[in-house]
Parts: sequence; structure tokens; C-alpha cells
Amino acid sequence: MKPPIDFWFDFSSPYSYVANEWVDALAARHGRTVRRHAILLGVTFAAAELKSPVAHPIKREYSLRDFARSARFEGVPYEQPATFPIGTQNAARVFWWLHDSRSPTDAAHWARSAFRAYFTRGVALNDPLALKALAADSGLDADAAEAAWNDPVWKDRLKRANDQAIAAGVFGAPFFVVDGEPFWGNDRKPQIERVLATGRF
Amino acid sequence: MKPPIDFWFDFSSPYSYVANEWVDALAARHGRTVRRHAILLGVTFAAAELKSPVAHPIKREYSLRDFARSARFEGVPYEQPATFPIGTQNAARVFWWLHDSRSPTDAAHWARSAFRAYFTRGVALNDPLALKALAADSGLDADAAEAAWNDPVWKDRLKRANDQAIAAGVFGAPFFVVDGEPFWGNDRKPQIERVLATGRF
Repeated sequence: MKPPIDFWFDFSSPYSYVANEWVDALAARHGRTVRRHAILLGVTFAAAELKSPVAHPIKREYSLRDFARSARFEGVPYEQPATFPIGTQNAARVFWWLHDSRSPTDAAHWARSAFRAYFTRGVALNDPLALKALAADSGLDADAAEAAWNDPVWKDRLKRANDQAIAAGVFGAPFFVVDGEPFWGNDRKPQIERVLATGRF
Repeated sequence: MKPPIDFWFDFSSPYSYVANEWVDALAARHGRTVRRHAILLGVTFAAAELKSPVAHPIKREYSLRDFARSARFEGVPYEQPATFPIGTQNAARVFWWLHDSRSPTDAAHWARSAFRAYFTRGVALNDPLALKALAADSGLDADAAEAAWNDPVWKDRLKRANDQAIAAGVFGAPFFVVDGEPFWGNDRKPQIERVLATGRF
């Protein structure tokens, strides 16, 4: 059994959303599975003294263009959310609640559902009412989901995930580790595919 | 006659070096030429309030790994220079001297020679003696090259190139514009290839 691909993401990261759409199929083609880690990118930015790519107007203008173009390149639907970026701690806590109390597969389903809601329909994951509605639409008990994101247990679980990410050298998202080798960015897909296919990087 | 691909680079940028090795062949496959612009990345970083990817230890460690890996991915030889990054204003002024007083082709030859010297043999482009020797090895008159990089005319030419880069939205390197569409990064090669092949981006 080959080790899984570790995949760190933030629900507000467009490149993470795009990567989330291809990573399972890529892994499966090479007999791998994916181990997902929902984190808060703001925490890892702070640790490495970095800023969001949309923090400055010059880079923001390019980045908004590149988000949509990079999605098109991978054949993934994309609509730039009007409110961007947003705080994603509640969505991430729901991820960890499902991950630990149900299964990583249930958490992965939620990840896909939340990413698609935000990046194709503009569902405000930072709005509790919208997030509850999304939870219900995603087949979850909306009240239980709300209770989870308000529960210190899952708040703490997300904090631990952030700490573990920083300890693993994560400073951006999407971030992958394949057989000990780190890869940052949706655009590292071809390099990840090569290492999976050849064992060399 | 299709318009050329604009390509901005800094001689101290590893990803620019790698891109410099593939950009002409890629352009030629699609009936295009390349219009090179030597700039100082520090100036564009400052304009967009950005930092070098090696400014912070967390990102530095990853980036050094990724420089070499991205070169291997493109089949380009790479040796991380011991002194990195370095000031490249003299090498860039030689570029513009050749570009304007001889030809863009002569300037492109110098670009390839200087990039390869720094990123495969560790030749310190910021050391005047080493740069003179490299100029001679590259078939130039070394004294004339030195006179050029000390000449206010070529100092000013480089400043104009930096200003024009900022005006064009350049905030990093390598940076490309293809038919009005901006692309940042060696890793945008597949997207550039697609737009050249299909006209869509």
C-alpha cells in the first residue's frame, strides 16, 4: 500500500478549489489516496510573513484573471465570488468534525460541496445562515453542523491542523506532500504527476 | 506576422533562467518570436509591495528545492549559486547596450550566456571582474561591456525598462504577455502553449 498524498487547503483559496477537483483522480491513477487537511491560510501566511496574492492591487488584478484562467485550463467551472477572500473557519471546523467523528470520506464530500458552492455559486461560507443551508443541501444535519463549528473541540482541532501545517513547512495552499517531497500550488500538478509516475522528482 | 511574445526577466531569477531556455522554441513552434526585457525584480517587488520568495526561511527552503526541481522538470541543468540572489544591474545594462546598439538577437545571446553562467557554473554576475571575463568568453569586447554598464545612457535605459515593466503590470519574473494576456511564472508554460495553439485563454 503506497502512502497517501497529503493535501492542505483553505476553503477561500481558488487554486485549492481547482486542485480539489483533480487530486483524487490523479492519485487514483497511480494507486494512491488523498489525505485532506483543512487549514486557515491566513495563519500560515502570518507564520511565513506572507500576504494574500490579492493584497496589493497590481498582483490582485493579475491573480483574479489567473484564478479563472487556471480553472478553465483544468476544465473546472469557476465564478469569482463577489466577496473574496472570506473567513473559512466555520467551514473548516465542519470538515474536521466530519473527518474525526464520521470519516475522511464524509469530510471530503463536504470539502467538494463547500468549494463548489463558494466558487461556482458564490455561497458565502462565512455567513452562518448560508453555511447552515449549505450543510442541509449537502445532506448534513444543519443544527449539528452549526453546533460543531461553535464547539471548542472542533475549534481546537482546526488550530491543531494549522499548527501541524506550519510544522510541515506549509506556507500557502494548495500544498501537497508526496513521499516526503513538498509541492506548492495548483500549477505543480505536472510535477506531482511525474513523481507519481516515475518515483523521481 | 503574429505579434511577438513579451518576456520580462531578471538575471538572478531561477525561474526566469529556466523559462529563457524554453521560450524561443515554444514561440517558434507557433510562428512567434520573443521580445526580451531585462529588468530588476527588486524594483517591481517594491512597486507591488512584494518580497523575494527566499526572503523568509520557511518559503526559502521550499523555493530552493523547487528551483532545482523545476529546472529538472524542463530538462535544464541547474546548480544553485552559493551567493543568491545577487544584484544584476550590470548584466542587465549590457543586455540593453547590445539590444539597442547591436540587435535584440545579440542581446538574447548575452542573456542565455549570462543565465547559464550564473545558474550552472556559479559565475558571480555581480562581480565586475567575473562579468568582464564572462563578456570576453561570450565574444564581446570586455572593456566596451564594462564601459556600457558604467554609462549613464545604459543605466537610464534599464531604469526605463523597469518603469515600463511596472506600467505593464509586471510584479514578478518571468513574466509574459501573449496577445495582451499576462502570464506570471515558469509554471505558466502549459497555459501559454495552449493560448498559442488555440487562441483561447
